Amino acid sequence: MISEFALIERYFTRPAPTADLGVGDDAALVRIPEGHQLAVSTDMLVCGRHFLADVAPARLGHKCLAVNLSDMAAMGAAPRWFTLSVSLPEVNETWLGEFSKGMFALADRFGTELIGGDTTSGPLNICVQILGVVPTGQALKRSGAQPGDDVWVSGTLGDAALGLAALKGEVQLSSDALDFARARLEQPSPRVALGIALRGVASAAIDVSDGLLADIGHILDRSNVGASIEWERVPLSNALRSHCDTERQQRYALSGGDDYELCFTASPRHRETIATVARAQVLTLARIGVIESTAGARVRDGQGHPVQLASHGFDHFV
Amino acid sequence: MISEFALIERYFTRPAPTADLGVGDDAALVRIPEGHQLAVSTDMLVCGRHFLADVAPARLGHKCLAVNLSDMAAMGAAPRWFTLSVSLPEVNETWLGEFSKGMFALADRFGTELIGGDTTSGPLNICVQILGVVPTGQALKRSGAQPGDDVWVSGTLGDAALGLAALKGEVQLSSDALDFARARLEQPSPRVALGIALRGVASAAIDVSDGLLADIGHILDRSNVGASIEWERVPLSNALRSHCDTERQQRYALSGGDDYELCFTASPRHRETIATVARAQVLTLARIGVIESTAGARVRDGQGHPVQLASHGFDHFV
Repeated sequence: MISEFALIERYFTRPAPTADLGVGDDAALVRIPEGHQLAVSTDMLVCGRHFLADVAPARLGHKCLAVNLSDMAAMGAAPRWFTLSVSLPEVNETWLGEFSKGMFALADRFGTELIGGDTTSGPLNICVQILGVVPTGQALKRSGAQPGDDVWVSGTLGDAALGLAALKGEVQLSSDALDFARARLEQPSPRVALGIALRGVASAAIDVSDGLLADIGHILDRSNVGASIEWERVPLSNALRSHCDTERQQRYALSGGDDYELCFTASPRHRETIATVARAQVLTLARIGVIESTAGARVRDGQGHPVQLASHGFDHFV
Repeated sequence: MISEFALIERYFTRPAPTADLGVGDDAALVRIPEGHQLAVSTDMLVCGRHFLADVAPARLGHKCLAVNLSDMAAMGAAPRWFTLSVSLPEVNETWLGEFSKGMFALADRFGTELIGGDTTSGPLNICVQILGVVPTGQALKRSGAQPGDDVWVSGTLGDAALGLAALKGEVQLSSDALDFARARLEQPSPRVALGIALRGVASAAIDVSDGLLADIGHILDRSNVGASIEWERVPLSNALRSHCDTERQQRYALSGGDDYELCFTASPRHRETIATVARAQVLTLARIGVIESTAGARVRDGQGHPVQLASHGFDHFV
């Protein structure tokens, strides 16, 4: 059996050139550039809860880091370093090799370095902590939305929920649509470049991890405002449009989790800047509503009728 | 049932006055003082592996943070902030209240603030990530030991292993000894002040989490040196001395884990300084051996005979 130290050496130790000290001591050492704040976030993924036991390990490695990169994106922070703690029911070297390959491929795309962690035996559980930097005072918080601000969302919503429903056999998808929706579920693209481009533009931001209405709810709560959302403007993929009726589209796009798009608010004077960002990043940015002073999120369809949903998002304990 | 957000609000949200932004956004924001490096470490504790299922929750809350504070101590870093990710099989509010009380009591002792985290349902698993600061260049690494340096250890060794053996029924202890050994196992005292005092004094340091020989082995490997240890100088508690024969004393003190004392090396010219630190901190610091150029750790008893051990420490996968 491979030892814990050999396992870390083989699968989780790589040069971390921007760190002063990486994996292999009691702690890693890094330096934060002057005039910057450190942004810190962490996400824990549990087998059977956040991913299915038979997920391809490379995709799981990708996802564990992606959900953390998405938190940096939502803050407008540049991700720099991360730690990885993993509890493994068994040491399967093929699985570990694929997992670390998927994770490091994404880390490389974002210039993010693994600088520490912990491995142990136990039920499969993966916890990543991410560290990023942002010029002091420029982070995108949840608390800055103002009445009159536009509400924006990147990409398309509901695809991850569609993918999960398909894997559970609740929806039948064409082969192409299944590949698309499954990739959206298992290999989300964190919107890091978008978050950075929105510094000084967005008044508030959050990533859509628990469902649009639940997540925009956090912006509204923190900012003491409300919002009106136009269902017709909520961006949907062709896969979702063509395989689901309106009720299901609304359920997945408004309360499905795991899309990892950004939802943000911005003054209408920034519309041209935001359009420029969208073109530069080849990313759809849809203006879906407006911030209002009356609390709560109101969604209306094309006829002006309120859209009602049974559930407003994912809660781990309800 | 309490919601995830209410749970975080009730048990894991407290003011974090030294953070620019604490719990409740996509990431926390902190500032690192100029001229300092950030020290980063993480430890994951799994039920049945790192603690027994029936451990008092306040003690578990203490221990999860203590093992991370101990990593800061071993670096000579001042702990500042931490994040907590926890996977819970059920929401037991009594348990959560006690757990958070134990954790925050220790956090308060060290001026360390909870700034973020994640909660989910799943098998009991607790992952803490800790952030500390250290003046640039002054961190205590594992790699600086030099032939001729003294080898030191704080406190007494083997008590946590004694406590675990007693809880498993492998050793019979007096009531006082059981209380003592159990507290050593379940409520370790991280040697943070010692680590800070050793800046500029210790040439290398590590905390004793996997057993003295395993942990000093990391110093020896990283420093490309060896060591001779005198068994007679290894500090033992009265509880260990009076309840165990020599073989068991050696097993617990040399290869038992979870003591969270510091093992460090220092030039003999620092002996007086180290004695002063010991007096100031009312903490035993024992000089147990010497660094040599020949690789490996050699332990000899009072008659000069080599001490042989079956196992050299704890490995999660062997």
